Amino acid sequence: MSSLPNSLKNISLFLERLPGIGEKTANRLAFFLLNLPEEDLKEFANNVSDLKSKTKLCKNCFNFTEKEICEICEDGERNHSIICVVETVLDLLSFEQGRIYNGVYHVLHGKIDPLNRVGPDDLKIRNLESRIQNSESKIKEIILATNPDMEGEATAVYIKNKLTEIKKLGNLEIKISRLAYGLPMGANLEYADYMTLKKAIEGRNKF
Amino acid sequence: MSSLPNSLKNISLFLERLPGIGEKTANRLAFFLLNLPEEDLKEFANNVSDLKSKTKLCKNCFNFTEKEICEICEDGERNHSIICVVETVLDLLSFEQGRIYNGVYHVLHGKIDPLNRVGPDDLKIRNLESRIQNSESKIKEIILATNPDMEGEATAVYIKNKLTEIKKLGNLEIKISRLAYGLPMGANLEYADYMTLKKAIEGRNKF
Repeated sequence: MSSLPNSLKNISLFLERLPGIGEKTANRLAFFLLNLPEEDLKEFANNVSDLKSKTKLCKNCFNFTEKEICEICEDGERNHSIICVVETVLDLLSFEQGRIYNGVYHVLHGKIDPLNRVGPDDLKIRNLESRIQNSESKIKEIILATNPDMEGEATAVYIKNKLTEIKKLGNLEIKISRLAYGLPMGANLEYADYMTLKKAIEGRNKF
Repeated sequence: MSSLPNSLKNISLFLERLPGIGEKTANRLAFFLLNLPEEDLKEFANNVSDLKSKTKLCKNCFNFTEKEICEICEDGERNHSIICVVETVLDLLSFEQGRIYNGVYHVLHGKIDPLNRVGPDDLKIRNLESRIQNSESKIKEIILATNPDMEGEATAVYIKNKLTEIKKLGNLEIKISRLAYGLPMGANLEYADYMTLKKAIEGRNKF
């Protein structure tokens, strides 16, 4: 690294801090930037510089937005009576990519993870509760779409218990559901893990 | 992507242009940037913005530098009578990383590649020739360290022929050498390709 000029070295060192990027990749990316047009670099630099001040969390669902309320929550054509609860905005994007879901979301920004000292109060769970309490019975279903790993499961169970209490107290009719477990499409049984197979058998459907 | 605010979408779209970064990785990196301290982002933005205006090619060896002459060429403790000819600055960095070489370099910035319309005149070969002609017999050895692939080989052969002419014309005593071929350290014979094995047998040494 000592033979790189500072102009490149600083960029390379910054890129190395990003997830999945090591020293060699960081160098290669920095060199690639050097070959891009000056105006593209300036525009990117401005965007990076303004990123944090411009990007806010939606007051309703905690998706990223530049306004108070995100595009999804503002969209009158979506079904606002179904809320899909996801861990991160990346998960939300996965659903949006396929346009397979027409309801709205609630982003928790993490999962309950005691080993990393993340408790329920570090997530947007309280906000989900008050969102439901203030909805005037307009919400019909909550889909718990946390990841199917240990922490995601625990988070789903925690939220389910909380929502059951709220339903009882408010006398609300809300369906609480969880994403289906089973084999992913295009999977090979030979390589499936036994927990997935177990869930696939338990959840088998009439054909 | 439609549900991402512009502040994030623009950064993600830019990152997608970089080699080896797809849409999902670009999103993940953009989200990661959002969590970095504001001042780090501003500093990175400034560095990107100034990158092209600050970074020049060394007038001597064509390494990247912020000055006229790069650190390596300026270093009086290095052996300036040996020039290692490499394709890219990334290759130069590989040598520098291990501090295994104390000579100087000449960066070609590419290799002869007719399929992609890169000819000898698109590289810094003429500059290498005049560098040798103007050296007043101070250069004792040229190491051709282009990659051991077809284009790298062709480039090495082309340069060797050019340098042989120059040696004759100028009556110069310059050794021209090429990096050794053979098995990489820690390799497994079972997985070695036969061309490498052929080179390893041809180049076998007394033990």
